[in-house]
Amino acid sequence: MTSKPTLQVVKIGGNVIDNPSALASFLQDFASLPGPKLLVHGGGKIATQMAASMGIESQMIEGRRVTDEESLRIVTMVYAGWINKSIVAELQGLSCNALGLTGPDGRIVLSKKRAATPIDYGFVGDIVTVNAESLSGLVQAGFSPVFAPITADAAGQLLNTNADTMAQALAIALSSTYDVTLTYCFEKKGVLLDPNDDESVISSIHPASFIELKEKGIVSAGMIPKLENALKAISAGVSVVRLCHADNLQKTEIGTKISA
Amino acid sequence: MTSKPTLQVVKIGGNVIDNPSALASFLQDFASLPGPKLLVHGGGKIATQMAASMGIESQMIEGRRVTDEESLRIVTMVYAGWINKSIVAELQGLSCNALGLTGPDGRIVLSKKRAATPIDYGFVGDIVTVNAESLSGLVQAGFSPVFAPITADAAGQLLNTNADTMAQALAIALSSTYDVTLTYCFEKKGVLLDPNDDESVISSIHPASFIELKEKGIVSAGMIPKLENALKAISAGVSVVRLCHADNLQKTEIGTKISA
Repeated sequence: MTSKPTLQVVKIGGNVIDNPSALASFLQDFASLPGPKLLVHGGGKIATQMAASMGIESQMIEGRRVTDEESLRIVTMVYAGWINKSIVAELQGLSCNALGLTGPDGRIVLSKKRAATPIDYGFVGDIVTVNAESLSGLVQAGFSPVFAPITADAAGQLLNTNADTMAQALAIALSSTYDVTLTYCFEKKGVLLDPNDDESVISSIHPASFIELKEKGIVSAGMIPKLENALKAISAGVSVVRLCHADNLQKTEIGTKISA
Repeated sequence: MTSKPTLQVVKIGGNVIDNPSALASFLQDFASLPGPKLLVHGGGKIATQMAASMGIESQMIEGRRVTDEESLRIVTMVYAGWINKSIVAELQGLSCNALGLTGPDGRIVLSKKRAATPIDYGFVGDIVTVNAESLSGLVQAGFSPVFAPITADAAGQLLNTNADTMAQALAIALSSTYDVTLTYCFEKKGVLLDPNDDESVISSIHPASFIELKEKGIVSAGMIPKLENALKAISAGVSVVRLCHADNLQKTEIGTKISA
């Protein structure tokens, strides 16, 4: 039993952001979640479309976007500007006291440019520390932080950062003060026993059952890093990691729960 | 005599933002200002250049940009995304605990779409209220807010807002808790006695001396609305309004001070 207050960290990705009606419906669900909460959003296709309309080609290496100077400017504009402020304004319209943030705001997330070898991803940042005190202070003041996945290093260089990792780092940092549930909304209802059957959701996974699922080859290769990260978050203090479809944010019985 | 703590509200415009070395030097000066402080920045030429590179033409009516849906998206991206986060990250690199904000963040500024008659400016918002409590709370928590001139109405519609007016409204709201100096950095050293002599700065203006300067035709027509707004801020509670060049932020003896 823990006596900490509960807090929800929710991450949404491009599949929700790129679909205005799905986004509107998700934001209504998020706004009506009781208690302290925090949202992390990814980018979606807008940045790529934007770059294309400006005649800038997105460079990809092994499925990852290389962030050159022009691309950094575009992702900062799209993620921290348009998407973040649209979400904040919409949440405020739903009486949720959203506060849009990126890493450098209030020194909350400090990152470091990823080493240029073996692959130079450009202006990509890996998280070094999260200022849990500054972040908890904003939550305690009644704000619902909404994070765009843009951070900065100690010298003030902006860096593009993975939104899943950002959600995990924020959830871990908040777990010293809160009983944290970290929810990843993705395109499936949860982790599937049978990848061809969308209803075959595994309702709960623990460290021991994960080893079994992995050994028996039940979870798909693509899900293994997601689950390994979820288990890392659990071992670092997060109470529950939930994988579910954005439509089911409020339907807590649907989805996969990973816990200790 | 007032026993309120002092606070500085500083507004910079395009002439500083468009010049990277002027901006870097200004941010160093701003970061080293003692005590609580807040920055409001305008947009500069980046939004116009951006629109042009995307093949979108900026529509102007009587020297004012008409903000259609595409332009709103661009100004939100450029002002609240790129410019705001670049400034925040740079200030953090200078050990100033900057927190980037727009109107909807934390419900600080509520605006209303300007009436479409006689001229339809599109998605332009006029400020209705400032939540002084929410803003003061952030300042008291040790943050230096950095505002981009983007606001939202009660329904969550983002709106383009005049940065000078935003700085004035924020300064007035903070004057209930703080002894506020509102500094407008512009391209001149101050209000000039002789528009052809950049050194002929009028060091102080009071309501009575303003009437005299206006009657004698000493202040140029372009300066009159700026000074009238400054006097409005003074009568609404701001202690001093200062007009100076961005280079002279720290040199408090240079510039024009407007007070009661």
